[in-house]
Amino acid sequence: MAEQTLLEAFNAAPYPVTGSSKWNVNQLLEAFQSADGEQDSDIYGTGKIIEEFQAKIAAFLGKPSAVFFPSGTMAQQIALRIWSDEAGNKKVAYHPLCHLEIHEQNGLHELHHLEPVLLADKSRTIGLADIQQLEEQVSCILLELPQREIGGTLLPFSELEAISAYCRERGIKLHLDGARLFEVLPYYKRTAAEVCQLFDSVYVSFYKGIGGIAGAILAGEDSFTAESKVWKRRHGGDLISLYPYIISSDYYFEQRLPKMEQYYHAAVELAELYNSCRHIETKPPVPVSNMFHVHASVPKEKLEQLFKGIYAETGVGLTRSIREVDEGNSYYEVSLGDRYLALPKVKIQEALELLDIRLAELNG
Amino acid sequence: MAEQTLLEAFNAAPYPVTGSSKWNVNQLLEAFQSADGEQDSDIYGTGKIIEEFQAKIAAFLGKPSAVFFPSGTMAQQIALRIWSDEAGNKKVAYHPLCHLEIHEQNGLHELHHLEPVLLADKSRTIGLADIQQLEEQVSCILLELPQREIGGTLLPFSELEAISAYCRERGIKLHLDGARLFEVLPYYKRTAAEVCQLFDSVYVSFYKGIGGIAGAILAGEDSFTAESKVWKRRHGGDLISLYPYIISSDYYFEQRLPKMEQYYHAAVELAELYNSCRHIETKPPVPVSNMFHVHASVPKEKLEQLFKGIYAETGVGLTRSIREVDEGNSYYEVSLGDRYLALPKVKIQEALELLDIRLAELNG
Repeated sequence: MAEQTLLEAFNAAPYPVTGSSKWNVNQLLEAFQSADGEQDSDIYGTGKIIEEFQAKIAAFLGKPSAVFFPSGTMAQQIALRIWSDEAGNKKVAYHPLCHLEIHEQNGLHELHHLEPVLLADKSRTIGLADIQQLEEQVSCILLELPQREIGGTLLPFSELEAISAYCRERGIKLHLDGARLFEVLPYYKRTAAEVCQLFDSVYVSFYKGIGGIAGAILAGEDSFTAESKVWKRRHGGDLISLYPYIISSDYYFEQRLPKMEQYYHAAVELAELYNSCRHIETKPPVPVSNMFHVHASVPKEKLEQLFKGIYAETGVGLTRSIREVDEGNSYYEVSLGDRYLALPKVKIQEALELLDIRLAELNG
Repeated sequence: MAEQTLLEAFNAAPYPVTGSSKWNVNQLLEAFQSADGEQDSDIYGTGKIIEEFQAKIAAFLGKPSAVFFPSGTMAQQIALRIWSDEAGNKKVAYHPLCHLEIHEQNGLHELHHLEPVLLADKSRTIGLADIQQLEEQVSCILLELPQREIGGTLLPFSELEAISAYCRERGIKLHLDGARLFEVLPYYKRTAAEVCQLFDSVYVSFYKGIGGIAGAILAGEDSFTAESKVWKRRHGGDLISLYPYIISSDYYFEQRLPKMEQYYHAAVELAELYNSCRHIETKPPVPVSNMFHVHASVPKEKLEQLFKGIYAETGVGLTRSIREVDEGNSYYEVSLGDRYLALPKVKIQEALELLDIRLAELNG
């Protein structure tokens, strides 16, 4: 019999720490439990079910209109293409760890022929100075709030306002990768609309902290969203029926948006526990959303072995996967939701105390 | 109060003729009634739920492998792009009423920069002679079976074999737009695999005759489908969870594939009834699938008025929409499924007799 993987060990653990629920068919069944079977499907982007949800999220984001997309990959490429076409300038700027740069198989170039200019570096978020130092004219800048691949780090809101003002003066469009926008509102102490008014276009996701099945919204002025619908058709995203994602997005949005503040405080609490362990540090040291990264000065394979032992002994599943930084170091992402809120504090303390001991043993 | 639209009249009619069911949330609820809630979601194209369905449909189509896509628009653009890249030739050939030419906002050009060459003309399907007369070298030819926009017409199978042999000799890839492939198998008296072996790549849909919620399969050799997955990611179609479409596709595939022969015979029967009406003819005169078009020498608005009267008097809903051909002529598509099979014959006869009388009155 093959040895259990870390994912299998995580799935078997009675006290999983991350996420809100198992990623299985029950997610859909729960969302549809109270759905009206007689409700008409959306049809190719039209109909009450899609139009009402779009209007609801547009209002929440403080934008005139919004379009539901099957994925953020599609929505964001399209946003950048529209701004690029409008300016007649193929150059767009974003962070070197932007989703478009590292997770989309170079779709922005292969499909849209856009030319990214990278801002800042892999260790930190984009600041106003990076934008002021841009040597090339770009049509659009994409900012991700929070910057997921560096643990969910965030600019001060005042710097965001300064960036927005700077870009508006120079006619550079500002696009928000808000995959985890809902998750940073408690830290910013701002409404979504207050954040979004700094941007010309906004993408939000419904399966990160919200925990829906899939789906995204792209919001902006009417002329922008109208054009995005044409591109959605071109991309093959204008499905005859998107309601399986819309109904579940709406359901979990209602369930989990009010809990974002709890998720955020939970992340601050758990990061503090992690940082009390030897050979461990979190990035950022104090989270600003429901997420952070855990870095360990231990090789990936060794950490996996050690974690499987902890899951078996304590029943606590700390993470489903671990990634290598370099030969001697590894890290993983922690993103908190309903599961952490339901977790007995004594269990997580027990698991992290054991982690501290085992890491000390390992590092002699 | 606004006057009732034809669609509203159709939806209110107790005896709708076309389709298999209402296009509403019950479609999903029915498909998920027996689903296992503990079944894991697919994750970005991996996992049992998606891999098993892909393998099942690949086997049915007689191809080594298959990839599930959210839409046919996405799947087909990608197929043509792969064949074009492989040949280093941006020219691809298809019918002037091909889906890519008229329903996709020119995505093939705007995203893939491909250059379509149109074959045959709007009144007929592509034949071997059209291909032999091609003056330009193309990387790929797309054939749609049946050709939907001209009523669902079809080449003789022997001519299809000749086209396939001709293309193979000349190194031209042949792609099947099989949006309604399942629907023509009873007429061809061939298995899906016997048809598909004439093609290098095949797309099939799960929401036409099958009546699923959305979704498509693209099938071919392993190297082809592997590359199609990269493009699926680029297009934004590699969703974290596609199972809402996969489970419903599989459910309705099992339900309705065995009925394709009944749907086909129903279309032959109903077309004959239509053709007995004055001022009406069907295209094709004798259907070769579950579909045909009804052409009336009556202006669209007049026909809509007349139809609303027939729906009200007989309870039979003949079509949800009518399109204009030119000032004095109109047409609509008829696509048959479970509803026609359940319809009392006397009701449809009553409706068409009334139609005949009303058309005669109208045309004096």
